[in-house]
Amino acid sequence: MTGGALARSMKAIPMSEHPLEPIFHPRGIALVGVPSEPTGQGGGGGGFLNSIMEQGYHERAGLYPVNPKATEIAGLKCYASLTDIEGPVDHVISLVPARVVPVLVEQAVAKGVRSVHFFTAGFSETGDPEMAQMERAMVKRLTDAGIRVIGPNCMGLYVPGVGLAFMGGFPTEPGNVMLISQSGANAGDVVHNLSRRGARFSKVISFGNGSDLRAHDFLDYAITDDQTEVVTAYIEGVQDGRKFFEAVKRLAAVKPTVLLKGGLTGAGARAAHSHTGSLAGSTQIFDAMCRQTGAFRAETMEDLHDITVALTTGLRRVRGRDVALVGGGGGFAVLSSDALAREGLDLPPAPQAVKDQLSEFIPVAGTSVNNPFDTNMSTPELSLRALRIVASGPYDMVIAAPSFDRSWRTGDEVVDDETKRARQLEAATQAAEQFAQLQQETGVPFIALMRDRGASVEVADRFAQEAYKRGVAVYPTVARAARAVSGLLAWRERRVGLPEVV
Amino acid sequence: MTGGALARSMKAIPMSEHPLEPIFHPRGIALVGVPSEPTGQGGGGGGFLNSIMEQGYHERAGLYPVNPKATEIAGLKCYASLTDIEGPVDHVISLVPARVVPVLVEQAVAKGVRSVHFFTAGFSETGDPEMAQMERAMVKRLTDAGIRVIGPNCMGLYVPGVGLAFMGGFPTEPGNVMLISQSGANAGDVVHNLSRRGARFSKVISFGNGSDLRAHDFLDYAITDDQTEVVTAYIEGVQDGRKFFEAVKRLAAVKPTVLLKGGLTGAGARAAHSHTGSLAGSTQIFDAMCRQTGAFRAETMEDLHDITVALTTGLRRVRGRDVALVGGGGGFAVLSSDALAREGLDLPPAPQAVKDQLSEFIPVAGTSVNNPFDTNMSTPELSLRALRIVASGPYDMVIAAPSFDRSWRTGDEVVDDETKRARQLEAATQAAEQFAQLQQETGVPFIALMRDRGASVEVADRFAQEAYKRGVAVYPTVARAARAVSGLLAWRERRVGLPEVV
Repeated sequence: MTGGALARSMKAIPMSEHPLEPIFHPRGIALVGVPSEPTGQGGGGGGFLNSIMEQGYHERAGLYPVNPKATEIAGLKCYASLTDIEGPVDHVISLVPARVVPVLVEQAVAKGVRSVHFFTAGFSETGDPEMAQMERAMVKRLTDAGIRVIGPNCMGLYVPGVGLAFMGGFPTEPGNVMLISQSGANAGDVVHNLSRRGARFSKVISFGNGSDLRAHDFLDYAITDDQTEVVTAYIEGVQDGRKFFEAVKRLAAVKPTVLLKGGLTGAGARAAHSHTGSLAGSTQIFDAMCRQTGAFRAETMEDLHDITVALTTGLRRVRGRDVALVGGGGGFAVLSSDALAREGLDLPPAPQAVKDQLSEFIPVAGTSVNNPFDTNMSTPELSLRALRIVASGPYDMVIAAPSFDRSWRTGDEVVDDETKRARQLEAATQAAEQFAQLQQETGVPFIALMRDRGASVEVADRFAQEAYKRGVAVYPTVARAARAVSGLLAWRERRVGLPEVV
Repeated sequence: MTGGALARSMKAIPMSEHPLEPIFHPRGIALVGVPSEPTGQGGGGGGFLNSIMEQGYHERAGLYPVNPKATEIAGLKCYASLTDIEGPVDHVISLVPARVVPVLVEQAVAKGVRSVHFFTAGFSETGDPEMAQMERAMVKRLTDAGIRVIGPNCMGLYVPGVGLAFMGGFPTEPGNVMLISQSGANAGDVVHNLSRRGARFSKVISFGNGSDLRAHDFLDYAITDDQTEVVTAYIEGVQDGRKFFEAVKRLAAVKPTVLLKGGLTGAGARAAHSHTGSLAGSTQIFDAMCRQTGAFRAETMEDLHDITVALTTGLRRVRGRDVALVGGGGGFAVLSSDALAREGLDLPPAPQAVKDQLSEFIPVAGTSVNNPFDTNMSTPELSLRALRIVASGPYDMVIAAPSFDRSWRTGDEVVDDETKRARQLEAATQAAEQFAQLQQETGVPFIALMRDRGASVEVADRFAQEAYKRGVAVYPTVARAARAVSGLLAWRERRVGLPEVV
């Protein structure tokens, strides 16, 4: 991203009066303990510097590596200590070992920073009482000085548009999904997977042990953050149960709030305890909490991804269970029908008018003008015509599998790989436009299935991005789309007495 | 594949005395009705010719396009009719419209072929009594002349090694999995998906309406086919219930047999009826049939893929429910523990000896020496050491997530994309070798998770191929691996009184 584009996207980010707001707008970032040869894109030390530079933060504000053994790292001036930095530093990322943390804490207080994120681990989560005490002491010293703490034992912040990230390959443009996660790895998985499907994020927070700022603080912030339209959270242990409940309740009343609780089984709870020192809860208690607050309970990480796609596309308007399924071949239609039925969705037969219109240009052999429809989608024009007729039927949604293979070669024309690639990418964009146009025109939510085997990963990704950008939900399988729809409908039914948020 | 390699792989294919054996070894193939400009890789006309040529059939035997409007197609001499072909033709693929079929049938009889595969659709599956009568008539005429019929309304045969295929991109080397499928699209999905995961096929048959040869015929053939070690089948309607039951029973007694029934829900049954004219069955009946015969009932297509991977790798030897889970980060460990527990698998804590050995070289902070293990896998040497220690514990299987990102750059070395790619591919092969070595050495089945985000699709695919080739099962998620293991264990427990087949 260029400096200009970055400045523009900065302006576009609304700022609230919430006390946590400044944390997301640091006027200078120091990375303390960054290795002199930063490598990799993950969390291990150098990844933070690389990821923040990839986001372009250093092009607009001060980015300061701190390492007494280097004078320059990745082209940036390197400082021996935090207090040596001339310019303002609002946010500190601590990559130092736990034993060095007390020194860093004093420097942070002296420098007058606003927030410290401890990637540093080895505190209360180890179960060692001495390290737990050290965690409490460092938090007290910092918060007494008005400095907020994120972590320890976490990945910290991803704020696209501002230029802050904790892993490589994250999109630079901001979006409307907030993610709050105790686990950094899970936060990374959500960002990578949902971005590939087209979603973009307002703020992502991995807060680990939650020694100061915790889930309820960020949930509270989400209520006032205009940039955030849908909130997702991965929770291991609920700290301050009452505050958590109240924050979820207030948030879920105004914005779709999706919660995934890890450690609901015995084995999961044991793993959670050794991961973030969290204590177990039960499925029943967590489920009751979601019902009472109006939050959506995701049962798996896949559920969290899939419901987020539904909640941030035209699919959020789906009102009933009647599906029109188009394309994919006979055997696919049979298994898909089974998958829809298992989620309580229906495939009502096509009205005569729909069948008549489709029969006008669809050969009978090997195709079907009933629901599931197996129509001739061999050209963009035929596809548009068929889908438009189908959507005129009494359906609450249309699930269709686009093909991008159709337009890359005409007759016996010989095309080179680059031409084929360009044409397939064009076809993917065209298909996305077509779905969006039909969804807009008919008011019926469209769900696109990404199952064209002839398409490369690049073409499939292009389609997902272009479709999502235009408000069309894309799913890898009918079963997953069906589960998302059925979950969304059930969640809406449960929210009696609450305002409609989608 | 070169002609020489093809001839070698041909020799490797054992031949039985079974009456269907010759169908899989045609000494000449005619494609009747192939378009003069064959395009695409799918089923639509030209795809068959392209796919068979991709397999190299024409380099070793006669491949004859038949189309009165052309003299040459794709570099092959084209014939005006089947009877014009000079050389022997054992197998005919009919791409002509249904109305032309009677003419083709007479030519096939006159030419004395062994088998006709009708890609041609529009017969009994349309519900039109006249077309159903036409189907019966053509089958009678052909079978009376000793010619076997595959289809109509299907994709026919994929016999790698012989050079016969019905879609592009299928592997040319043969394997040990047979697939029998009414649906051609589903057969294509299975071949594409399972080959990407490393599996290879002995024979794949899409038989559509099953007007002559049906599921039970091919199941019967599978019993005697030495090349086939595991049989998978996608069934819509069971024709000849008694014969089907008996064939499954005899087969499942000697080889793992995986059945997926489409159309078990009301909507699925309606779709199946319009697809292959099949009548519905119920889940209860089909489930009882599987229990009585000892077949494995896959509930979804994903199940069919996942259990086939388990049955054809070292994982088939898994004997209990105790899992060691290694790597992936804390939050991943929590959700994975939940996923394992939901499938009834356990994560027993590590014995002190294992913890002590791991602690020798694993830092405490941010890692875990208990189960789930979150160990230092930053180099191949550390990874091998850690996994070997883990596998020495009381576990029935080890599930581990390899990383390929580690070895592509040393320190601040700048490498170009091609070098990075080559090193990652090398790392993928090395990781596969390591898993296979440990599985062999310890006798504990290893399950590799394919979740390295840093890896390109090419690298991930390479890993899957190299791991599977060496007998290591690869799964995309812990949940799917857990479901496959739990399914396999339950299936084995149900097979009381039957010989062990894995």
